[in-house]
Amino acid sequence: MGNCIVAQSGGPTAVINASLAGVIRANQLNPTFGRVLGGIHGIEGVLAGKLYDLTDVPGSEIEILKQTPSSALGTCRYKLRRGQEEDFVKLVRVMDENDADVMFYIGGNDSMDTVDALSEWACAHGSDKRFVGIPKTVDNDLVPPDHCPGFPSAAKLANMVTHATRLDYDAYTRPEVFVLETMGRDAGWLAASCCLSGDVDLLVLPEVDFDRDWFLQQVQRKMDEKGSCYIVVSEGAHYEDGTYVSAGDSANDGFAHAVLGGAALTLKQMIVDAGVAPRGIVQDLSRAARSSNFAQARIDVAEAYELGVSAHMHAADPDFTAQVVGVKRGSAADGSYNAEYFAGPASEFANFVKNFPAEWIRKDYQGVTDEALAYFAPLVAGEPDIIYGTDGLPKTIVPYNLR
Amino acid sequence: MGNCIVAQSGGPTAVINASLAGVIRANQLNPTFGRVLGGIHGIEGVLAGKLYDLTDVPGSEIEILKQTPSSALGTCRYKLRRGQEEDFVKLVRVMDENDADVMFYIGGNDSMDTVDALSEWACAHGSDKRFVGIPKTVDNDLVPPDHCPGFPSAAKLANMVTHATRLDYDAYTRPEVFVLETMGRDAGWLAASCCLSGDVDLLVLPEVDFDRDWFLQQVQRKMDEKGSCYIVVSEGAHYEDGTYVSAGDSANDGFAHAVLGGAALTLKQMIVDAGVAPRGIVQDLSRAARSSNFAQARIDVAEAYELGVSAHMHAADPDFTAQVVGVKRGSAADGSYNAEYFAGPASEFANFVKNFPAEWIRKDYQGVTDEALAYFAPLVAGEPDIIYGTDGLPKTIVPYNLR
Repeated sequence: MGNCIVAQSGGPTAVINASLAGVIRANQLNPTFGRVLGGIHGIEGVLAGKLYDLTDVPGSEIEILKQTPSSALGTCRYKLRRGQEEDFVKLVRVMDENDADVMFYIGGNDSMDTVDALSEWACAHGSDKRFVGIPKTVDNDLVPPDHCPGFPSAAKLANMVTHATRLDYDAYTRPEVFVLETMGRDAGWLAASCCLSGDVDLLVLPEVDFDRDWFLQQVQRKMDEKGSCYIVVSEGAHYEDGTYVSAGDSANDGFAHAVLGGAALTLKQMIVDAGVAPRGIVQDLSRAARSSNFAQARIDVAEAYELGVSAHMHAADPDFTAQVVGVKRGSAADGSYNAEYFAGPASEFANFVKNFPAEWIRKDYQGVTDEALAYFAPLVAGEPDIIYGTDGLPKTIVPYNLR
Repeated sequence: MGNCIVAQSGGPTAVINASLAGVIRANQLNPTFGRVLGGIHGIEGVLAGKLYDLTDVPGSEIEILKQTPSSALGTCRYKLRRGQEEDFVKLVRVMDENDADVMFYIGGNDSMDTVDALSEWACAHGSDKRFVGIPKTVDNDLVPPDHCPGFPSAAKLANMVTHATRLDYDAYTRPEVFVLETMGRDAGWLAASCCLSGDVDLLVLPEVDFDRDWFLQQVQRKMDEKGSCYIVVSEGAHYEDGTYVSAGDSANDGFAHAVLGGAALTLKQMIVDAGVAPRGIVQDLSRAARSSNFAQARIDVAEAYELGVSAHMHAADPDFTAQVVGVKRGSAADGSYNAEYFAGPASEFANFVKNFPAEWIRKDYQGVTDEALAYFAPLVAGEPDIIYGTDGLPKTIVPYNLR
């Protein structure tokens, strides 16, 4: 067989490089492909022929790559669209010029759609080029797998910060609310996972249309009951008409606040303006949640890496294309969590959003059910296993990032 | 001797409980005091007679207390003012009622002033009650010591997030700025420490009056040079007239944005409005920086604990009052960092703010000098040494927090 290309796309995660490391290492263990070429900045770089030879990355660097956050090859938001014939022609030409038979694409929904579209086009045009997807997303919203690499680490960091800031908040006697914001535009998995620490009083998810007055009543109730209210909100929380909560407090009459910022800032201001609490604290996890290598979940690193290995092994089969690898939840003999690996059609990964299940949401913003907690618990378990540098920071390596 | 009281005040840190643990443990090693009584919610709780017996906290719990963030005894913002005679009388009465000879107060500038005022009052009124301070502050702005417990851990977390989010930011090709905000109302130590990771392009400190146009020129230069600009700003950054940057972009003519939020959000909007970059990302460390037990700096835990022990040992001397313990920087035989412990008058800790040194600030917002980096480096060195629970989160214990 010839060479292969591997590239990354979409928002980085704390373990997206572990999947890259898995592809590189698998080819060292069994050189199915002559060379492993890294496409710089996703499909954009591949189209421009920007490739970097990763075949012989030494084992010591591969270990550091596994704990390097962000996308070591760079990322892009460029979406390859069906019908943009010249992109497809060009991409296959770049693969030809580099003697590449297979392209591995590590990404979210959009990237899996790219895998599907490229496979479809190749098939329709008699090309033997093949395309294989490796999933990642802190949003955890791909349908077929139990969960996606990147999510467990983001959930772990979110839980650590939730617990630490809850203790910080509880040290005070003054009446105020605390509002933590997490990523999650369409699905509330990450926000919901914060409930695992047992510190969340109210949870606002994109899966439940936001009802301002009802929400404020719940905040008032918590403040009355215990003098505090710790709220977690997903960035994608929205009103029934689809308007994001972060767009501002539209129901706020009279004194109009132009709020530039996130959902947490808006909720805090809404609560203060309504007189429910005289002040509030805002903590937006923002990018820190998805890039915090110092809080990598053990299972997440292992699974992201093994999905890279699995994709490479599957790709030895010359008929394997338009497929994505993933993890299903199984049980070990003692009932403990066990990852089971599978591969499925890219189209099933691409075109759906897996929302946080309605039956796991407790009403009146009261958090999640025990079933949800049981789902989250094994994903964040275990101690981080990080190699530190003499500077006291986790070691990282980004030799291929060409910004 | 009789009993002692220990209480915590001001903003919590990641290691303020390590100092509390030091006091408790020292009394177990050498029972100078009959009982160690924890004052709940600082001076407020002590005045109300809310005390909790900590004398016999078992060693295993003391270990967990050392890694528990926030103030385990609760905190307060109540400032005891000279002249408020009834507070002084009441406090000494509470100490009498509980047979307490000494009160240890763990806190920042204001708390050290409380130590000073109480000692002064006791001396003037023929009382033999004594008051001893143990410093803490993530702002690092107390004058006599080399640094303050709480700061190294906050700096370590800030550096970890800076490096991780820088890599995340660099993965993209699109033109945008990144703005990270840290705590630091009067002094820029924490923001400056972010430069240690080598990832910061521009640094905005409270120590340099903010010049909007000149700053925007520097951003433009970075964007022109390398297509990216990673900015760190201290929450206390302000214009020459004292107006906080976070108060909004006052120089912004025409289209008025009412910005509710922090300095980072304001800078981002200022840059976008000025057309210097089409978009920007904001990351506010907010409370996470000071409460992140999972990023405790090794030196910080050790020093915070030993300052608690040191304060207790000093207090065996019946003349020891109106004093605060602290750390000076010494050198081991091989030139490496070595903490030297000292005690000094509370008045020297109370009434000054130690700014980040002007000679360590590079002009044009270009970060800090090598001397500054050499100051920061040993404080964040070493791997975290954390005891994790089966849930995958650092173990914590807060049996005395009565919110």
